[in-house]
Amino acid sequence: MLIVMKSGAAEQEIAAVVKVVEQLGYRSHVMPGATRTAIGITGNPGAVDPARFENLAGVAEAIRVSKPYKLITLDLQPDKTVVRVGDAMIGGDELAVIAGPCAIESRAQAFAVAATVQRSGARFFRGGAFKPRSSPYEFPGLGEEGLKILANVREEFGLKIVTEALDVAGVDLVEQYGDVIQIGARNMQNFSLLRRAGRSKLPVLLKRGMAATLDEWLLAAEYVMSEGNYQVILCERGVRTFALHTRNTLDLAAVPAVRRISHLPVVIDASHAAGKNYMVAPLARAGVAAGADGVLVEVHNDPKSALCDAAQALTLGEYEEMLSQLRAIREVVAP
Amino acid sequence: MLIVMKSGAAEQEIAAVVKVVEQLGYRSHVMPGATRTAIGITGNPGAVDPARFENLAGVAEAIRVSKPYKLITLDLQPDKTVVRVGDAMIGGDELAVIAGPCAIESRAQAFAVAATVQRSGARFFRGGAFKPRSSPYEFPGLGEEGLKILANVREEFGLKIVTEALDVAGVDLVEQYGDVIQIGARNMQNFSLLRRAGRSKLPVLLKRGMAATLDEWLLAAEYVMSEGNYQVILCERGVRTFALHTRNTLDLAAVPAVRRISHLPVVIDASHAAGKNYMVAPLARAGVAAGADGVLVEVHNDPKSALCDAAQALTLGEYEEMLSQLRAIREVVAP
Amino acid sequence: MLIVMKSGAAEQEIAAVVKVVEQLGYRSHVMPGATRTAIGITGNPGAVDPARFENLAGVAEAIRVSKPYKLITLDLQPDKTVVRVGDAMIGGDELAVIAGPCAIESRAQAFAVAATVQRSGARFFRGGAFKPRSSPYEFPGLGEEGLKILANVREEFGLKIVTEALDVAGVDLVEQYGDVIQIGARNMQNFSLLRRAGRSKLPVLLKRGMAATLDEWLLAAEYVMSEGNYQVILCERGVRTFALHTRNTLDLAAVPAVRRISHLPVVIDASHAAGKNYMVAPLARAGVAAGADGVLVEVHNDPKSALCDAAQALTLGEYEEMLSQLRAIREVVAP
Amino acid sequence: MLIVMKSGAAEQEIAAVVKVVEQLGYRSHVMPGATRTAIGITGNPGAVDPARFENLAGVAEAIRVSKPYKLITLDLQPDKTVVRVGDAMIGGDELAVIAGPCAIESRAQAFAVAATVQRSGARFFRGGAFKPRSSPYEFPGLGEEGLKILANVREEFGLKIVTEALDVAGVDLVEQYGDVIQIGARNMQNFSLLRRAGRSKLPVLLKRGMAATLDEWLLAAEYVMSEGNYQVILCERGVRTFALHTRNTLDLAAVPAVRRISHLPVVIDASHAAGKNYMVAPLARAGVAAGADGVLVEVHNDPKSALCDAAQALTLGEYEEMLSQLRAIREVVAP
Repeated sequence: MLIVMKSGAAEQEIAAVVKVVEQLGYRSHVMPGATRTAIGITGNPGAVDPARFENLAGVAEAIRVSKPYKLITLDLQPDKTVVRVGDAMIGGDELAVIAGPCAIESRAQAFAVAATVQRSGARFFRGGAFKPRSSPYEFPGLGEEGLKILANVREEFGLKIVTEALDVAGVDLVEQYGDVIQIGARNMQNFSLLRRAGRSKLPVLLKRGMAATLDEWLLAAEYVMSEGNYQVILCERGVRTFALHTRNTLDLAAVPAVRRISHLPVVIDASHAAGKNYMVAPLARAGVAAGADGVLVEVHNDPKSALCDAAQALTLGEYEEMLSQLRAIREVVAP
Repeated sequence: MLIVMKSGAAEQEIAAVVKVVEQLGYRSHVMPGATRTAIGITGNPGAVDPARFENLAGVAEAIRVSKPYKLITLDLQPDKTVVRVGDAMIGGDELAVIAGPCAIESRAQAFAVAATVQRSGARFFRGGAFKPRSSPYEFPGLGEEGLKILANVREEFGLKIVTEALDVAGVDLVEQYGDVIQIGARNMQNFSLLRRAGRSKLPVLLKRGMAATLDEWLLAAEYVMSEGNYQVILCERGVRTFALHTRNTLDLAAVPAVRRISHLPVVIDASHAAGKNYMVAPLARAGVAAGADGVLVEVHNDPKSALCDAAQALTLGEYEEMLSQLRAIREVVAP
Repeated sequence: MLIVMKSGAAEQEIAAVVKVVEQLGYRSHVMPGATRTAIGITGNPGAVDPARFENLAGVAEAIRVSKPYKLITLDLQPDKTVVRVGDAMIGGDELAVIAGPCAIESRAQAFAVAATVQRSGARFFRGGAFKPRSSPYEFPGLGEEGLKILANVREEFGLKIVTEALDVAGVDLVEQYGDVIQIGARNMQNFSLLRRAGRSKLPVLLKRGMAATLDEWLLAAEYVMSEGNYQVILCERGVRTFALHTRNTLDLAAVPAVRRISHLPVVIDASHAAGKNYMVAPLARAGVAAGADGVLVEVHNDPKSALCDAAQALTLGEYEEMLSQLRAIREVVAP
Repeated sequence: MLIVMKSGAAEQEIAAVVKVVEQLGYRSHVMPGATRTAIGITGNPGAVDPARFENLAGVAEAIRVSKPYKLITLDLQPDKTVVRVGDAMIGGDELAVIAGPCAIESRAQAFAVAATVQRSGARFFRGGAFKPRSSPYEFPGLGEEGLKILANVREEFGLKIVTEALDVAGVDLVEQYGDVIQIGARNMQNFSLLRRAGRSKLPVLLKRGMAATLDEWLLAAEYVMSEGNYQVILCERGVRTFALHTRNTLDLAAVPAVRRISHLPVVIDASHAAGKNYMVAPLARAGVAAGADGVLVEVHNDPKSALCDAAQALTLGEYEEMLSQLRAIREVVAP
């Protein structure tokens, strides 16, 4: 924490700040400048709340210096985390591909897509049984029935199942039928859900919230890890901006930014960022080129009749073509 | 829904769109223009998913026309909803004032603030027992212990209690000890929580999400109402933007915008938008001037030692001064 | 400037940073913490570029502490600036009202509106002769012909003329016919234009850019002032966000934020923020309640046939009704 | 244009809208729906201003359908524009590389960087002689002296010069010394500058404004083209969002979005988007993978002592390594 005093701050005001610092058990470092004095604080075990100082007389600003997270940092674990799901992995040498329909609609649909996903060499199958929908009048997913279909896909095709839990009860169900618990953008700060996922034995794929800063996203991962589950995969899926040509603005700078701070793997969800079929492949390629450990992508055997997010689903043919490009780019970036 | 064809769209492409419209059981209206043809769709009972059309050959754009909500609209109920909590109300003639500390820290703190809130003539007391915190290492609130203190405040001072539920279990507890269930910005699209609140007998104060559009916010209210609970109060608390001089950017245009569409009352949370003590009164005044039905505001008997959001809490004196301004402005706006 | 070292930074890395600080002629203050060392810099005459340090080995972050502006600050001039235009003023006791049509369309239109503006007691008339339009195919204003009509309005009604200059040549013309040079949001960082306005004898009304931070806006004012023109009025007119129910999101927290740092007066443009007629009065009231020194508002004698921004113009009747509310609120805020 | 009536709109209100449409000389198409009536408008030669209708009685909304641009569209020119500068080109088969320092600081610096740029096989050299700086107290560039150095670089190394013009007078100078006129993000809606560049014989590299929608950016290109200069290169350089881990949020979805509408080439500026050295290569790779026609990138022979944007400049070695990756990715995307 650095306290910046106003330019005309009185000696007693400075002394009063120093006193508060010392009452908190920290050390203060007074630095008189040409126009203003700054006071550095050290000795604090965790982050100091700037609010303790901002309203003191003579204080212009309190600037946070320490970062509030610990477990996600390279300081704590310099080697990159590789999340293993059976013999498949995310964060290792191979590009992780997590493909499937937006929502599980029927056994026939799931199996048709899964056959292509398997043939493409991808190891993970995604598909929603519980869908968070903005409107209460939209298709909410098949529920546990959908999870059972996913479990069948796992048996039949040997694919690992990534599927979303919307609440604490949902985590119980995903533990029963799936392999990776997905936490969606809308739930990134649903702390009850994060804590429950942190007590699971399954890895957690944590999507970035629509308006989440990097720090908030990493702190959400910290919530999961602070309960003991270190198998966290971060997923960038675009943030909300003024731009209307795309559903969300994919923030690929998040990939190198996370790498610089954290040992956790990062994947990108090209489909939700794009919102439009023709943008998915360009954005997925961009994500891999930026250094992501994997991609989530929506494919559908018959996009026109999809019950959810039809506009952004790839056909099976488009998906296979894209995948060969992604693998070639991966070779360039991480040979 | 309006389908806009590309400028060179072929006759068969137009015919194919018309066919899809008719297969869905709707009526199509072909409007040939100088450069492009548009096709209107009518006869659809609810919103049509644009995705059904966007990837058809020759289609440039599918524009949604119908709004996806029903219960919140003035079309359904032309008279403004007045939410009644015993003899107090929100949405009626009187400005609703919901004041109290960010978090309940102790019985002494709660009672000291409550005495001022009661004396000021406000009818609602706010205070968090369960606090959503970005970091797992920050003060999470006193939990049920805090709720018991709130119940004591109600008995002792006759104030109505507005307090946050973070999850389904939290709603059970608020029902036991409080008067109004607050749903926070981070949970605006926590649909399990919305549905549970929709089955409560208590009114729901629904904060706008940090990056929620007006439609998404109204649809969240629609979730609550679709379960049978029509006592919903909307609360604008600022949205996330690039602006750093304020914690969130208070979007006061939301007040007239909601009014134009919905019968639900709207209040504003000046404290969370401001994030800084000196901005709270100006923003609260602005909210009342814009036509809000009430204000949420954080007051604390000793802001410097507050365990949560200290920087934005008003002292008891500042609070009382502000309140007399708010009431005078209310007189101008809704005499 | 505060340099934060990485947690494992070596002694030589710290020494290297100190050496760079000293080479620049500044003083360094090394503060070793539990996990990381921070280095304060003092003795710098102006802002230090963080980039000088960010790529040095062992450096985690360089945090700017000094603010880059001088002339706009309360440090330099503790008393509020009152901009005087003849016997009218902005920033004084009286609420400044700057009203008129978006664009000057004809002498008849300008005179019809001016008669109402004069009768309402407002002292400033606004109207564009040069209109910045997103498309090259839209009405660009009447040009010098429009300025001549404005000069006639001044003579006939005794109103002060506020009108926009789009470029250096435009400033010459506004100096000839007008009283206050308006610089629009799109030109807030048109530095040639700012410098030219800074050499004018006329006051400058400087709109905030659509995505300008508070610092950038204040620095744009600093550009004007650094050329010698201290008569600057800041104008908040909304910023661009994801919210679609309004043309721009009016950021009223900017009013107290500017007040806290600067002696310059601040007015708000309710019409451009709203973009819709029915939102203008609520937002104008909110601006005055937040403490603005004045309001810009678009009025038109026949909004339906306006050539520019018709949707947001008030009728003459709506304008007069709103004005009496604004004055009553002003009484409450600054009695 | 589509006019959506309120659900309870009266017959006369609908008739009144139809009458206005016909007075404007257009055709109306009334489509009665279950709850509301919509009225389509055709026969309009250009875009219709929604404001003409929004305030009419009974109107809920006026939705723009026609796009306001013409010259930039694939409708007008289905083949992609290839901008030729002597024997170099942008938009053709080869990836265009535009590299150089942020600002020209001296002949020695420019030549040192240019030698590397030439050796790398890039055809374009960038460097600012006139720098737009947020603060009046920062280094503004060497002015015409800098342009002369750039002209020397051209002679000596055979590189094409891309350099920024800040105003109309600047275009005159760039025409004298350079090859491509760069228009910066802050000037994207400086219409005097756009019109002047539109009368130049040199190609124009048009950066997207910090908060510009796709439509506004394309309309700015339309301004240049409407004056007769069809040699326009669009440059995505990141937009302003709430995200703080990066200087601007690079919006790579803009690349496929532009492609879908326009024949103009698109390049990306990885350096300004990143703001940090370590992010430049990942973002440049992502841009090429998304399908951009080229990249702008800042390189410096001695980044630590750069007078401008030091934090984001690549060293010569980093630049060469990145370039080989970009070319390999280009092979994958556009073999």
